[in-house]
Amino acid sequence: MRNVGIDIGGTKIAGGVVAEDGTILEQRRVPTPIDPSALADAVADMVAELTAVHDVRAVGVAAAGFIDASRSVILHAPNIDWREEPLRAELEARIGRPVTLENDANAAGWGEFRFGAGRGVRDMVMITLGTGVGGAVIIDGELLLGGNGTAAELGHIRFERGGRPCGCGQRGCLEQYASGRALQREAADIAASGGAGAGLAAARTSEGIVPAAAMARLIAEGDPGAIEAVHRVATALGEGCGAFQAVLDPQLFVIGGGVADLGERLLQPLRSAYATAVPGYGEHAVASFAIATLGNDAGLIGVADLAGSRAR
Amino acid sequence: MRNVGIDIGGTKIAGGVVAEDGTILEQRRVPTPIDPSALADAVADMVAELTAVHDVRAVGVAAAGFIDASRSVILHAPNIDWREEPLRAELEARIGRPVTLENDANAAGWGEFRFGAGRGVRDMVMITLGTGVGGAVIIDGELLLGGNGTAAELGHIRFERGGRPCGCGQRGCLEQYASGRALQREAADIAASGGAGAGLAAARTSEGIVPAAAMARLIAEGDPGAIEAVHRVATALGEGCGAFQAVLDPQLFVIGGGVADLGERLLQPLRSAYATAVPGYGEHAVASFAIATLGNDAGLIGVADLAGSRAR
Amino acid sequence: MRNVGIDIGGTKIAGGVVAEDGTILEQRRVPTPIDPSALADAVADMVAELTAVHDVRAVGVAAAGFIDASRSVILHAPNIDWREEPLRAELEARIGRPVTLENDANAAGWGEFRFGAGRGVRDMVMITLGTGVGGAVIIDGELLLGGNGTAAELGHIRFERGGRPCGCGQRGCLEQYASGRALQREAADIAASGGAGAGLAAARTSEGIVPAAAMARLIAEGDPGAIEAVHRVATALGEGCGAFQAVLDPQLFVIGGGVADLGERLLQPLRSAYATAVPGYGEHAVASFAIATLGNDAGLIGVADLAGSRAR
Amino acid sequence: MRNVGIDIGGTKIAGGVVAEDGTILEQRRVPTPIDPSALADAVADMVAELTAVHDVRAVGVAAAGFIDASRSVILHAPNIDWREEPLRAELEARIGRPVTLENDANAAGWGEFRFGAGRGVRDMVMITLGTGVGGAVIIDGELLLGGNGTAAELGHIRFERGGRPCGCGQRGCLEQYASGRALQREAADIAASGGAGAGLAAARTSEGIVPAAAMARLIAEGDPGAIEAVHRVATALGEGCGAFQAVLDPQLFVIGGGVADLGERLLQPLRSAYATAVPGYGEHAVASFAIATLGNDAGLIGVADLAGSRAR
Repeated sequence: MRNVGIDIGGTKIAGGVVAEDGTILEQRRVPTPIDPSALADAVADMVAELTAVHDVRAVGVAAAGFIDASRSVILHAPNIDWREEPLRAELEARIGRPVTLENDANAAGWGEFRFGAGRGVRDMVMITLGTGVGGAVIIDGELLLGGNGTAAELGHIRFERGGRPCGCGQRGCLEQYASGRALQREAADIAASGGAGAGLAAARTSEGIVPAAAMARLIAEGDPGAIEAVHRVATALGEGCGAFQAVLDPQLFVIGGGVADLGERLLQPLRSAYATAVPGYGEHAVASFAIATLGNDAGLIGVADLAGSRAR
Repeated sequence: MRNVGIDIGGTKIAGGVVAEDGTILEQRRVPTPIDPSALADAVADMVAELTAVHDVRAVGVAAAGFIDASRSVILHAPNIDWREEPLRAELEARIGRPVTLENDANAAGWGEFRFGAGRGVRDMVMITLGTGVGGAVIIDGELLLGGNGTAAELGHIRFERGGRPCGCGQRGCLEQYASGRALQREAADIAASGGAGAGLAAARTSEGIVPAAAMARLIAEGDPGAIEAVHRVATALGEGCGAFQAVLDPQLFVIGGGVADLGERLLQPLRSAYATAVPGYGEHAVASFAIATLGNDAGLIGVADLAGSRAR
Repeated sequence: MRNVGIDIGGTKIAGGVVAEDGTILEQRRVPTPIDPSALADAVADMVAELTAVHDVRAVGVAAAGFIDASRSVILHAPNIDWREEPLRAELEARIGRPVTLENDANAAGWGEFRFGAGRGVRDMVMITLGTGVGGAVIIDGELLLGGNGTAAELGHIRFERGGRPCGCGQRGCLEQYASGRALQREAADIAASGGAGAGLAAARTSEGIVPAAAMARLIAEGDPGAIEAVHRVATALGEGCGAFQAVLDPQLFVIGGGVADLGERLLQPLRSAYATAVPGYGEHAVASFAIATLGNDAGLIGVADLAGSRAR
Repeated sequence: MRNVGIDIGGTKIAGGVVAEDGTILEQRRVPTPIDPSALADAVADMVAELTAVHDVRAVGVAAAGFIDASRSVILHAPNIDWREEPLRAELEARIGRPVTLENDANAAGWGEFRFGAGRGVRDMVMITLGTGVGGAVIIDGELLLGGNGTAAELGHIRFERGGRPCGCGQRGCLEQYASGRALQREAADIAASGGAGAGLAAARTSEGIVPAAAMARLIAEGDPGAIEAVHRVATALGEGCGAFQAVLDPQLFVIGGGVADLGERLLQPLRSAYATAVPGYGEHAVASFAIATLGNDAGLIGVADLAGSRAR
């Protein structure tokens, strides 16, 4: 049976019809409207188009933000400025089919678990390194939602006591040390320090940003400043994964998002740092690490599959 | 249906027949033998005595240490010097009934979840503050075991980067800052610092230890050094609970073990520290805190109930 | 008996027919194709041309990267983006002769050992200072491969605790302090520091690089900044050689690669630093130092000879 | 065929007849004479007694110190104050059988490789943590002697630039950070620091030494100062093993000597530190770690077996 997945991002809405094996049969994209009700219309229109030619069981919608335990209400979606939005009921009325909401990081984690890097494991943690950090936890084949629907906020465990302030209101959150934005920050700090930062300094734009492509080139060239930046981010993430290991004991960590394109350049120092943060390292089995395989489609595919399974 | 629970501690073995409502119908205690095979004999004898007069479905055995994912083999029990001990098969052969093994912290957590402070919630974290830290996690009504059987090592998330070394081989583990031993250490440090530590210094034995009774007295008297020590431990634990909140989103934290006898003296600074470590604190529902209610019987009761449910 | 040696570099493939005394009888060069299968074609074509007119026993292929213990599979060749490439079987099928693979640094070391600076010794270490560091170890006349095929990673012993990050995922590796790239980095640091760095600063390009020719000129002129840069690199390498002495006790160190063109300018401070890092220096015989003599042909010659000896 | 092994220690000479399977058939012990010629007499007498009743092929003698490449001359044995001692010829004349000399650390390493923790591997490194550090390297089933007979001085690679002075004349040698004496030093430093060092301070003798038994008890009790001391030593050793991995690529590290009695308490932090010092950790196979199994007999057994194989 086919399902529709909709992934609401900060700049565009992506939607697709997803088969039971995770294949995308048809896909659409529109810009994300700024107005919330226009956004609901855009989602409904996209679902209408996709269901006109495909026989679809259920509709899943992924969005950034906190979602309540019943997967009905968006408690707070910072990027879209939603609060306590009963989106599920509104969409079900317009669409005439069961709708499920899910956090975008959970959707992507479920996609990788079912059809990507996580196939075949039962206990998995996915960490999506975009601008910030998205987390998803699979326990014994089930997505961890939490008692209030807000589990797997993996970017917000404390990495450094009294450390950098975070948008979540606390200090020292892992996200401030291990994310796309953190990589930019480390690159900027190193560029400013002179010496080894000359390559980064030369690649900086007038806004003080080192574009991802330039960063990738510098890393491939072995530029010491760029490698230092990656090492710092990977070390923070590896230590964080040690904490997730202690609490959750997954079989596999899947790393996704734009920063994961660094591949082994990221995973090597990450694994070393992880080994310094797992209790009793070497005494019992621990988790493996893999790069995500579904790319930007993970959320769309995952939320479609979740919708299908919740509609059963 | 009744079940037997056995709790193997460092100094004594406690066993009991437990009714379906968690009531202990009959209880025994013997010293823990040093020799592993004498220990298995002692457990088998105790079970034989308890089952002579009670109709029992299953037997649960709780012990400190890592237990494999099938709850059959003790991978490593430092206190009893067991490694790769296939205790379940050995006990089943001697006892003639289904046996289940469980980590003592998990057993206590399950006991509190089913019959103690955690009744009525679905998602709970229990932290047992003895000499070290024991952790148990209940997710949607199920005990979290982990992909390799070693989840919920809650005392071993990193609290301080590059901090105090831990018996687990790493540095800065929460257990080194929030446990009975950590409370002793903080008391010793404060005593050594003079000033506010005068009360603690006077109460110290020649081995440099402040006995628990003296500690309790000093706290009741409002001794500034003793209160400082409790505050440090509570702060560390509260920050750790912030991390567990971010990852697991429980409805309730239950605090047990000897240090939990401090009650609100512990919980008050703990909740404040927790509020500084939960992402988006105040924006969505978070967990409550409660002191455990079953005391030392939690493990025995919990493992009996687990044995019954696994034998079904 | 003659053998063919092929040296796959980042920009060109060099191949030659090598006599039993190490003489190159005929040589070819083509650009390195970007596509891996085109690369295998290019190697096979070059071998076909070379064997059309020479009677050849075996074919050796040298490439940068990790090679498995059986010298059959390239585990990871970063420059060519190969992973788990069963190149030996593929080439043997195309070429119809026994093929052996070898790491380029090992091939060059073997070449120098058999026909270059290392003739006549039994225990030798070769260090190739190109952009990075290549290492090869000869023990009692045999090339050291290691239990997993990855021995002699001499650029990756730790030189400085907590030091500069390395592309290998660790920190403080010798390669970050003693290599062509390290020489560039030291030159840039010295140029930025003003004073003695004026000569280097003037020679820098707009990308912040001091070209090798300018560097050589400045050294010949006795420019204090350029000499300081060489001294730093030589010191790091000498200290590293002290560690190799303690572990391996070679009779001879051979220094090759582009940086070795500095000759005694490099070896003099290197030997002094070595004397500060050898246990019991002056109490027992230690190793000598020599500059490599085969230049860029060392790898081609070495791998041809290795192929011949392995085919026996 | 049987062989005699003699292990000359600082305080006693141990000798034994060793069967081909490594079993000790008969054993003797006498105090080590201070005078060198009395020592040779004592060895000859012990061999005479042991060979009176056993049919013996060859005699191996193990002693601390540098031994020349032909295994004939003790170049320098600090504990016995020997220099350029042609001990082999002298003993062969007295004993009338082929004699081989070997460094005690090499002998112990060979013993473990043939009959202890290293059975079944081809490439192994043994590190003996006594007062100092002894090293032995097995490559492809052969003991590494080095070009001048002084290889495997594993305690003398540099751990810290500009660090603690070493008896070998250099600074920062690994032995100053990872050995029995280093453990004592760390314990003394921590005791002196107050606070967490109270347990160590209380256990110190009037000479400022924490006896091994007291150290073991404190570690078992989780004393924070004692655990800190072990962690420091294990970290240094783990980083050192990363360097040995990069150079030698062994399949197995065997840790012996008195400090190895700490078992997993030592190996856990050691493995974590090792993971931060191996190039490309996680990308290719690396070594395992094991505690030695032959105890104090390793040297005697190993040197007997070496003597037998060299006499063949």
